[in-house]
Amino acid sequence: MKRYTIGIDFGTLSGRAVLMNAATGEIVESSVYEYPHAVIDEQLNGKNLPVNTALQHPEDYLGVLRTTIRAVLQEADVSSEDVIGLGYDFTGCTMLPVDEDATPLCFYEKYKNEPNAYVKLWKHHASQKEADDCTRIAAERGEPWLAINGGKISSEWLVPKILQILRESPEVYRDTARFLEAADWLTWILTGVESHSVPFAGFKAFWNEVDGYPSEEYFAALDPEMKDIVGTKLSKKLLGLERSAGTLSEKGAELTGLAVGTPISVPLLDAHASMPAIGLDKEGTLMLILGTSGVQMLHSKSKVNLKGGSGAVLGGVIPNLYSYEAGSACCGDHFDWFVKNSVPASYEAEAKEKGIGLHQLLTEKAKKLAVGESGLLALDWFNGNRCILSDSELKGMILGMTLRTRPEEIYRALIEATAYGTRMIFDNFLNHGMKIDRIVASGGIAEKNEMLVQIYADVLGRSITVSDAKMSASRGSAIYAAVAGGAYPDIHEAVRALAVTTGKTYTPIAENVKSYEWLYAEYQRLHDYFGKGENDVMHRLSALAKEAAQGN
Amino acid sequence: MKRYTIGIDFGTLSGRAVLMNAATGEIVESSVYEYPHAVIDEQLNGKNLPVNTALQHPEDYLGVLRTTIRAVLQEADVSSEDVIGLGYDFTGCTMLPVDEDATPLCFYEKYKNEPNAYVKLWKHHASQKEADDCTRIAAERGEPWLAINGGKISSEWLVPKILQILRESPEVYRDTARFLEAADWLTWILTGVESHSVPFAGFKAFWNEVDGYPSEEYFAALDPEMKDIVGTKLSKKLLGLERSAGTLSEKGAELTGLAVGTPISVPLLDAHASMPAIGLDKEGTLMLILGTSGVQMLHSKSKVNLKGGSGAVLGGVIPNLYSYEAGSACCGDHFDWFVKNSVPASYEAEAKEKGIGLHQLLTEKAKKLAVGESGLLALDWFNGNRCILSDSELKGMILGMTLRTRPEEIYRALIEATAYGTRMIFDNFLNHGMKIDRIVASGGIAEKNEMLVQIYADVLGRSITVSDAKMSASRGSAIYAAVAGGAYPDIHEAVRALAVTTGKTYTPIAENVKSYEWLYAEYQRLHDYFGKGENDVMHRLSALAKEAAQGN
Repeated sequence: MKRYTIGIDFGTLSGRAVLMNAATGEIVESSVYEYPHAVIDEQLNGKNLPVNTALQHPEDYLGVLRTTIRAVLQEADVSSEDVIGLGYDFTGCTMLPVDEDATPLCFYEKYKNEPNAYVKLWKHHASQKEADDCTRIAAERGEPWLAINGGKISSEWLVPKILQILRESPEVYRDTARFLEAADWLTWILTGVESHSVPFAGFKAFWNEVDGYPSEEYFAALDPEMKDIVGTKLSKKLLGLERSAGTLSEKGAELTGLAVGTPISVPLLDAHASMPAIGLDKEGTLMLILGTSGVQMLHSKSKVNLKGGSGAVLGGVIPNLYSYEAGSACCGDHFDWFVKNSVPASYEAEAKEKGIGLHQLLTEKAKKLAVGESGLLALDWFNGNRCILSDSELKGMILGMTLRTRPEEIYRALIEATAYGTRMIFDNFLNHGMKIDRIVASGGIAEKNEMLVQIYADVLGRSITVSDAKMSASRGSAIYAAVAGGAYPDIHEAVRALAVTTGKTYTPIAENVKSYEWLYAEYQRLHDYFGKGENDVMHRLSALAKEAAQGN
Repeated sequence: MKRYTIGIDFGTLSGRAVLMNAATGEIVESSVYEYPHAVIDEQLNGKNLPVNTALQHPEDYLGVLRTTIRAVLQEADVSSEDVIGLGYDFTGCTMLPVDEDATPLCFYEKYKNEPNAYVKLWKHHASQKEADDCTRIAAERGEPWLAINGGKISSEWLVPKILQILRESPEVYRDTARFLEAADWLTWILTGVESHSVPFAGFKAFWNEVDGYPSEEYFAALDPEMKDIVGTKLSKKLLGLERSAGTLSEKGAELTGLAVGTPISVPLLDAHASMPAIGLDKEGTLMLILGTSGVQMLHSKSKVNLKGGSGAVLGGVIPNLYSYEAGSACCGDHFDWFVKNSVPASYEAEAKEKGIGLHQLLTEKAKKLAVGESGLLALDWFNGNRCILSDSELKGMILGMTLRTRPEEIYRALIEATAYGTRMIFDNFLNHGMKIDRIVASGGIAEKNEMLVQIYADVLGRSITVSDAKMSASRGSAIYAAVAGGAYPDIHEAVRALAVTTGKTYTPIAENVKSYEWLYAEYQRLHDYFGKGENDVMHRLSALAKEAAQGN
């Protein structure tokens, strides 16, 4: 009798389950469920949403559990009895307010039109003001955990999002029994036991293994009403990766179609789940995830206060290792924006005639350009800057256009901009004395776009191996599920048995490295000019835009 | 028996003739001939052209003369005997090398693949290096005429273009009998007499009424071979607007279908010809032409060294008045670039469904935006900056984009950028103590886009009247033709009888003026940052792009 595990990756627009052979790591089946509500960022039930709002509907996540597990089992003709473990990873901080029974407040009739009762997706940036206040107050009070979190609090994290709810909708705040990561909400739904998983608490909620959460005094300084949030609306039941999250309850079994008692692993952040999948359970290898946004992850045995990072968590991905995370708020998102908004009908016709997509057409054309030939330079801040500036109010910029500038040139400039942004993060790791021996890339964009990976290798001046592992996040969750299911004594053994360690390596091209060194210097100068206060025009325009939108 | 005049406007892509009633100013007929070769800027006979090259084929201009005059006469059923004068205006400096018989060198078999033997169009910017050398050497030598020409020599002017020919194709230079403005070439073709008209010599060739051309020493300093250019390859037969250019020769009559002996007026620059057409023959009114590029013209009785202008010529538009010109290298060109390169297929489908053009669709959508709502700010330098920086190597820039930025927001930002650029020029006139009582706008864009004119009024904080005169350049040429034909004693009498002085007035909206004041300050800061050497990134990128294009 073969044994299997299931890993589910809850992404920004869909959930994907894989069924893994627990002995070989082979993916037997996979199934995707697109969230019917997708990202709710323009209107909620016909009412316009404020700018930078990004909500989701929790029902969509249940839909994933209901459909994809059954689908993979059925397709593979595997019985639920042969599934030894279930694991999942989730975007984060993707949070929601729930009542004492784990019912999301947005399921209440009275809150169905209230944006603050819904899931705030990771890229919900409307709590920038709250994030700024969190940073200011932490800095004023000399909070020790601020440095661990990169010195600046992102609007993507949990506390600013909670503070926004309290400020804008105090009634929602008061009716909330727990503010949960969606990942932890699923654990509660599936096991019947409520918890806060360490990866999410550490990376998104200022928790660390030494001091726990910030103090009552800090929360009181944010708002007196938040003083006793820890232990009430914020769970103190921390759950580390070395343990399992519990087993499937009856309700959970009914929802998923799996057997009651099936072991459930502790959820990871979606991007992080790829690390075990591609064999990165030791220090020294940088993982580069290139998807909708970009993530850079590095393990280390030592604790470093990484300024300009997104956080460092002991046991955040692998037990007993510090995981350092940094990220680009926008990667594939940029290119998608461009393709949807800025590519003329003539290109669409050409792509159709060739039977290829617009991304491919643009890539084919952009590939023919020499480095620097377009004369363009862009800043990759269409979704703000996560690292190293942690400023969601920064915006995109392109310069160098002439009347001869063609779409593929701008497309390439946007790709290059994300590469320069990645180089900033890369250099920041090195400047903090961290060791990077190797770079392994993963994610849809890394798999699909060879030109892009070559540009990244040229800009970084380092070889990049694109992992052969497909669906690496779900795969990583399935590996952790194998540990929860007892097939391996620890994650390292599981990784050795199940991870995919092959891949195609892209070597930097010397001539391009030279030109990109030069262009990167120009990028850095504009990065600092627009991003570090020399000319704060982006912030001022942003403030005017909000004012103008209200008046209009 | 009614009497008529004909005015022809030679634009960038076509020539347009009007048949005017010489007593009433009524336009009886008009006819357009599109240049078959249009702008030759990518390939010449299958050979790639260097960047910034913009050529034309002189045969196209003859095509205009051959077809449009006959067309208007035939359509209006008017005999050529009833035409008392012919006038024309031309883009400038649009120059070509010809032999002793006025035959363009590009008509020679041996030169048919030689770019330097063709017409260099006004927007040919490949002689930027030569323009820089012209400026440097003039500054070093303390040439007095440099200040009259704004202190900086544009690559669009005559001498840099000639110097490029000498440097790149010395044989073409040596085989050239005369370097001519295309306008003066036509005068030679039509009357049989060769000349250099004062408007073109003054605005484009450093000539002035006091000193004439620059000295032999200056030309020798540019290149020893150019020492004696004045009087040899550059005509000393200056022709002012107070005179006529001569009468139609037999060859000219054959070409046009008009009668031998028909008086020909002295050609004006195309943008300038609108001034008499809309009644601007006195000082104090700013004419704003909004077409492919933008032109700002102002008459004054006094001589001012207008730094950052494009030139000042006594008798350049109206005899005995100084005409001050300034210009934006790009206006409608920007918007056309955008529509051709950056508007998605979905918008094209929507426009088609509504039965409107893309410009109209984008304008309808952009009109709904409040000032500042998009959060975008652009620099209008897609075709370089003519005034007040006179730097064709400057490039476009847009900042403030997010993943929610829509095409109409960028479209509006580009329009606003050209308005800010116009405000820079406007302020520059005022800062030089010049008087502006009124603004009258003309040109295709002013006529077609009400939103744009309102934005200009709001950005300038002044009322703008859009002249009712259609085809104003051809109309102005027809008015000068009426003076040449003896119907009026001088241009002032002709303007009083024939000009169109009505128009729609756009008044600034106080609230918008306030926001734009603020946005304009941001524009000015970026203008100075990127345009005045604080961050010369655009020049550096431009140099790299040229190098990269050669290697590719």
